[in-house]
Amino acid sequence: MLGRTVVIDEGIIMPLSPQQARVCAANTIDFSGLSALFINTSLKRSSGDSHTRLLLGVAGDMMQRAGVVVEHIHMLDHIIPPGVQPDMKEHGWDRDDWPKLWDKVRAADILVIGTPIWLGEESSVCRVLIERLYGMSGLLNDKGQSIYYGKVAGSVVTGNEDGIKHAAMTISYALSHLGYTIPPQADCGWIGEAGPGPSYGDESDDGTRAGFDNDFTQRNTTIMTWNLMHLARMLKALGGYDNHGNDRNAWKAGCHFGFENPDYRS
Amino acid sequence: MLGRTVVIDEGIIMPLSPQQARVCAANTIDFSGLSALFINTSLKRSSGDSHTRLLLGVAGDMMQRAGVVVEHIHMLDHIIPPGVQPDMKEHGWDRDDWPKLWDKVRAADILVIGTPIWLGEESSVCRVLIERLYGMSGLLNDKGQSIYYGKVAGSVVTGNEDGIKHAAMTISYALSHLGYTIPPQADCGWIGEAGPGPSYGDESDDGTRAGFDNDFTQRNTTIMTWNLMHLARMLKALGGYDNHGNDRNAWKAGCHFGFENPDYRS
Amino acid sequence: MLGRTVVIDEGIIMPLSPQQARVCAANTIDFSGLSALFINTSLKRSSGDSHTRLLLGVAGDMMQRAGVVVEHIHMLDHIIPPGVQPDMKEHGWDRDDWPKLWDKVRAADILVIGTPIWLGEESSVCRVLIERLYGMSGLLNDKGQSIYYGKVAGSVVTGNEDGIKHAAMTISYALSHLGYTIPPQADCGWIGEAGPGPSYGDESDDGTRAGFDNDFTQRNTTIMTWNLMHLARMLKALGGYDNHGNDRNAWKAGCHFGFENPDYRS
Amino acid sequence: MLGRTVVIDEGIIMPLSPQQARVCAANTIDFSGLSALFINTSLKRSSGDSHTRLLLGVAGDMMQRAGVVVEHIHMLDHIIPPGVQPDMKEHGWDRDDWPKLWDKVRAADILVIGTPIWLGEESSVCRVLIERLYGMSGLLNDKGQSIYYGKVAGSVVTGNEDGIKHAAMTISYALSHLGYTIPPQADCGWIGEAGPGPSYGDESDDGTRAGFDNDFTQRNTTIMTWNLMHLARMLKALGGYDNHGNDRNAWKAGCHFGFENPDYRS
Repeated sequence: MLGRTVVIDEGIIMPLSPQQARVCAANTIDFSGLSALFINTSLKRSSGDSHTRLLLGVAGDMMQRAGVVVEHIHMLDHIIPPGVQPDMKEHGWDRDDWPKLWDKVRAADILVIGTPIWLGEESSVCRVLIERLYGMSGLLNDKGQSIYYGKVAGSVVTGNEDGIKHAAMTISYALSHLGYTIPPQADCGWIGEAGPGPSYGDESDDGTRAGFDNDFTQRNTTIMTWNLMHLARMLKALGGYDNHGNDRNAWKAGCHFGFENPDYRS
Repeated sequence: MLGRTVVIDEGIIMPLSPQQARVCAANTIDFSGLSALFINTSLKRSSGDSHTRLLLGVAGDMMQRAGVVVEHIHMLDHIIPPGVQPDMKEHGWDRDDWPKLWDKVRAADILVIGTPIWLGEESSVCRVLIERLYGMSGLLNDKGQSIYYGKVAGSVVTGNEDGIKHAAMTISYALSHLGYTIPPQADCGWIGEAGPGPSYGDESDDGTRAGFDNDFTQRNTTIMTWNLMHLARMLKALGGYDNHGNDRNAWKAGCHFGFENPDYRS
Repeated sequence: MLGRTVVIDEGIIMPLSPQQARVCAANTIDFSGLSALFINTSLKRSSGDSHTRLLLGVAGDMMQRAGVVVEHIHMLDHIIPPGVQPDMKEHGWDRDDWPKLWDKVRAADILVIGTPIWLGEESSVCRVLIERLYGMSGLLNDKGQSIYYGKVAGSVVTGNEDGIKHAAMTISYALSHLGYTIPPQADCGWIGEAGPGPSYGDESDDGTRAGFDNDFTQRNTTIMTWNLMHLARMLKALGGYDNHGNDRNAWKAGCHFGFENPDYRS
Repeated sequence: MLGRTVVIDEGIIMPLSPQQARVCAANTIDFSGLSALFINTSLKRSSGDSHTRLLLGVAGDMMQRAGVVVEHIHMLDHIIPPGVQPDMKEHGWDRDDWPKLWDKVRAADILVIGTPIWLGEESSVCRVLIERLYGMSGLLNDKGQSIYYGKVAGSVVTGNEDGIKHAAMTISYALSHLGYTIPPQADCGWIGEAGPGPSYGDESDDGTRAGFDNDFTQRNTTIMTWNLMHLARMLKALGGYDNHGNDRNAWKAGCHFGFENPDYRS
């Protein structure tokens, strides 16, 4: 059974490389039953202008071919204020689309965050996303574990010259701290040589697109994608983590109320 | 001559410690002619709820007593979209208050950025500010240097448990990269012991306020404040940096157009 | 069956808290067959002087009670030069104990790195360890995956005032990048309030030890420990990761020789 | 008067670009009286094998032509244990060359730290250097300021694919925290496109050397070099910082003894 793509933004699409297509075609493992959410924290108002979206699309396409239900979200298509509360409408903001997005995050087995690099770091939009995810960390599942237990996460980072690892480090640490499991080599990206230059997918005079022929970007994107699926499938099959030793309800002393840190609210 | 405070937000004020007040009273150096802008990137909708604002106020108060013209800005009092363009209204956003703020940034000799810590890092609002400052980095002064040359910068970071240095590192590197000069020990802040606990200035049952009695937070705030003033005064007296070796107009090969990185736009 | 402790350094021992002891006593899951290596990258010449060792001991003790075979290594008991080659004796160094240590790393299902914080970051000794682990990343297992696949990792960070998350971020990213899987909430630590103060376990005049009564440090240490065991057990039971999509031998184009980056050597 | 080069390591030399040579030839400012120390924290046992050394040499050559006395140090030519004490021989190590190096650091007006990038961060040798510099931070000058006041610092970072900004951020923050002043745009470096590839200066089949023709690397190296000289000269002419507000002796409350953090030892 093939995955169903719930939402795919319009715009240019980067095709799978022949090798990626072959890996997908040769797959015999059943990943149906898994769902993946890709959130692009590009600074571009419109998804179609985002370079990062191209590489997110490659990962999403491979997952879909493997039977995973895939959805892409462009953060700036939504009005999501900064903050660490579940609904910022209760804290002075007129509108907050986060609760709608949260339903999707909560439902997805796999989360992939995409970010551009500016001044060597992830975008401000990416940090808003991390704040809002953090804002839910007081929620526990029915085993008394963080609501994020049993889910897996990765990151896709593009820029024109420096910072993949710095941004990936920030994202994967935040998600791990919240309760996601991070599979091996769960980040990928593209940057060019030091100095100004094209962004990922920018067209040259000769019609080639920057980074599309970078074998290692494509290799790492492929490895990340499959490791996310393998690990999500294993964790789902096993029913997530046993709660011996990590049950926050059992750790009675942890129940302090009134502090601002989201993970201490519960 | 005393400094004039153009804008001071309402709300609770943290008084100078006796030692800070004595340092201010004993000063004989003339800092008039200098101006300082304090930008608070708190996630609190209202300035009066911000813990970071309390410590920013201490630094601002000392500068004002030394004759510096001080202005405090609460980022969330303004509508400032993310992005790296001078005016985001030209890039799909309905409103952008950045151009008004930019006039203040451009005019100030001293910039102090305040941020809270969430998940060990600066706020998303702080990253928006960095993006917008970065968006102006193609501007040159009349010596062909970055528009930020001759200005100095520091940071004030508060949280309840971890990350002053990480956030300060990010802020001071970004500002240095853009053209600010960073004086010695130009960051200060407060955090409590690992785990949940009060934020800076939170009142205890016995009426004391968290961190107010932390001698080292007050010492470091004092040192940062005076170093910012000393260095800004020296640079201003000398007319900023000579442009031999750093004149971007002279570095002709640098004039590539059409790239997205702001510092390569000029 | 109880775990066997192959090596335990002499020195002061921090006892499990009553709650930790109860969690261990109530465990019914069989973790025998798993092994864990704890590497302390303290700057202290002698293990007995290390504050970080105390908290590493708590995690190790819980694992041992659950049946895991535990070994503690104090990096500075060994002569391990910096570098990214498997044996630095071939690159100008007289002595290199890394190959002996590598056998232990290779054999262990679980790796926990402990580091102190200095100036907000992990120790130089910790970076030597990361370099040497990186130096082995060209090795593949018999599925063509990084030699680290199927193993899990966590970190223990102590300092007297700031930087747990920064150091944990660095460590967990490096290990994830190399091929380890990072379970939820796989870091723990202790720091005190901003400013000078006791290190973890330092004795006060009243005989109490700094941080020992910090409920959240103990909670997080407990959660990390059990998550490492749960995930290592699951991965071992399933035979690690399927190699569809992550087989580096199959990704022929990846076989460039002669580059310095260890992960591209194979 | 031209600068005197006290020590220049043997090995390949990267010539100044024509534009850099012209900038140096056109200089009329007298920088004699200034001294600069370049410390290379390469993992290469021998200076001649270090790629980073090539770019450090460019900055050093420009300073020398401007009349600055320049010295290059290759950290691994010396036996310098990790740690945060002034002399590690008193803490269990047989040999420690740091005290000799410290005399040079103390004497130099300008410090430039060079580091390679491994796994996205500075080398372990670079962290040893930072630890040892930190170990001296309890020393005060005769104004009661950190011994580093009045000195300026920058960084040179090379790698083959990612991390200039991350490493520069770490280095410049550490040095600023210790008391150095950081001039505008005080970092430079070179990295190639994502994935494996040549390191800085590696020779291609056609005889060209990687990065040598990167205009922006050369531009940024030039700007950093001149800003370091301009600022060092200004600070020296003015006798460093006035000590009003930053005199640690005056801040009596700061005199706590017995804590491990070097900056609190005094």
